[in-house]
Amino acid sequence: MDVQETLKPYVIGLDLGGTNSVFGIVDSRGEIKATTAIKTQGYENVNEYVDASVDALHIIIDQVGGIQNIKAMGIGAPNGNYYTGTIEFAPNLSWGHSGIVPLADLFSKKLNIPVALTNDANAAAIGEMTYGVARGMKNFIMITLGTGVGSGIVVNGQLVYGSDGFAGELGHTIIRRENGRSCGCGRDGCLEAYCSATGVARTAREFLQTTEEPSILREINPEEITSLDVSIAAGKGDKLAQRVYEFTGELLGEACADFAAFSSPEAFIFFGGLTKAGDLLMNPLKESYDKHVLNIFRGKAKFLVSGLDGSSAAVLGASAVGWEL
Amino acid sequence: MDVQETLKPYVIGLDLGGTNSVFGIVDSRGEIKATTAIKTQGYENVNEYVDASVDALHIIIDQVGGIQNIKAMGIGAPNGNYYTGTIEFAPNLSWGHSGIVPLADLFSKKLNIPVALTNDANAAAIGEMTYGVARGMKNFIMITLGTGVGSGIVVNGQLVYGSDGFAGELGHTIIRRENGRSCGCGRDGCLEAYCSATGVARTAREFLQTTEEPSILREINPEEITSLDVSIAAGKGDKLAQRVYEFTGELLGEACADFAAFSSPEAFIFFGGLTKAGDLLMNPLKESYDKHVLNIFRGKAKFLVSGLDGSSAAVLGASAVGWEL
Repeated sequence: MDVQETLKPYVIGLDLGGTNSVFGIVDSRGEIKATTAIKTQGYENVNEYVDASVDALHIIIDQVGGIQNIKAMGIGAPNGNYYTGTIEFAPNLSWGHSGIVPLADLFSKKLNIPVALTNDANAAAIGEMTYGVARGMKNFIMITLGTGVGSGIVVNGQLVYGSDGFAGELGHTIIRRENGRSCGCGRDGCLEAYCSATGVARTAREFLQTTEEPSILREINPEEITSLDVSIAAGKGDKLAQRVYEFTGELLGEACADFAAFSSPEAFIFFGGLTKAGDLLMNPLKESYDKHVLNIFRGKAKFLVSGLDGSSAAVLGASAVGWEL
Repeated sequence: MDVQETLKPYVIGLDLGGTNSVFGIVDSRGEIKATTAIKTQGYENVNEYVDASVDALHIIIDQVGGIQNIKAMGIGAPNGNYYTGTIEFAPNLSWGHSGIVPLADLFSKKLNIPVALTNDANAAAIGEMTYGVARGMKNFIMITLGTGVGSGIVVNGQLVYGSDGFAGELGHTIIRRENGRSCGCGRDGCLEAYCSATGVARTAREFLQTTEEPSILREINPEEITSLDVSIAAGKGDKLAQRVYEFTGELLGEACADFAAFSSPEAFIFFGGLTKAGDLLMNPLKESYDKHVLNIFRGKAKFLVSGLDGSSAAVLGASAVGWEL
């Protein structure tokens, strides 16, 4: 390694979401030194988006002593392909939904530093390995429980990208093959259709429709129930709401039992909004896992919740992709 | 590397099966230079088994110019743990079913060469990567369709052993969660209960029992039907027998669609007795995969049958584990 290189103490992380793009400048211990944000949408094309990003970035780059202190940039983005540094047909990005956008290249040319990009769940896994509860782990599976269900798989200390850069779509493994719920991907029975935030709301609506059981959730228009409503109701002791989390945990445990047969991870690490339900979700999950997993794996894997602060975890994860360069 | 080391042109491969233990001395191009075999069972303890093995080995070691020409030994064995070099609670081995047997160590001390050990399906995957159709592939999944269903998964050019050495048990992922067939592992609905040789025979019996359809398989006592009988009948144009292979391929395709979501392999490679059915199995398998797989993976993975000769593949696979040392 070049001596100059070792003196660059920071990386830039970009958490590129459907609404906001959040930038952070991060040191090697995971401390965010400066941060800024722009809207992700509203640009004619990706070049305008990159220009607006770089304008915002220059201010925080100056705050840390200029670009000569920045080693690299990491991006966590929907449909991000690590191998090519591109975003491919991202349905929720106005400037990215209809093609392949070479985002890493565009930033690299503007900033004159190396730039790497991967999808948000992979970035979360790398972040956890760099700064979080997965430090020192060589084999683990990160499962993000948000609007969808994402995953980042680490094997032998490396992210699993697969032959095309798109490995680790565990939210789209089939958990119910008969009469499975329709999923946004066009198929039926995906884990994501059950164990995402929207899946939890669907389960609540199903339970309300198919039983006469009293529940404070009946005070809400069924179409407007969110996973947060279910979580609040469960916290207040609402039995139906609690059963929604039991059901969700039960399915996640079944799924993890299959994932263990694949890569036998040291830990499953959960991240995202649903983990706020705590033991309401994690206890039935662990019980279900022990019940369903193959004998030789029983009792081995740890079940952990991400140790990274929710609001900064995505930026930290993205920045960690930069350190990998 | 020591100069002396580079001059050692051979490795020993041991295919340790429930009945026979087959040894081969193999060069770096996968040519078997000498071979011998002993019975696996009938010894009081593992030390007697190792002594008998070494006695048999000395003869073929002498044939290739002595132990100074041997770099290492690789063993493919049921319930083999790569990390520890042990066989753990192997149900079919009289000297290995009730505990943890340090087989790699025992051979290493007797022969004074490095010895590595892994399970048979992992050995098959390494063999395919070293000598077969997976040469040059960094990401693939090997699926062995024999008495059981085994698997060896390669990610980033490395075998996936997981945190405990037992990763890659894809035969024990659940393919039918409701009313699934009982599996030898004590659970219900495993892929192995459907897509192994015994699974194919079970499917044939089910089809014969639940339909009135004519079939030449009705001439055989149902309890005695084997996958070979089904294969022969299918080859003769028997419709029921052909539907057994369609059903088997359909389920394997569904399973591979989930495996793609995990590691997005460049290829699925099939090995073992069932692959002799050829297109009868592979065509419905590929159709089912394309129908069930997530959009972004469709049309990408290759479906291959092992290029290694069945009778020597297991020894070659085991020997390849030795080259990895």
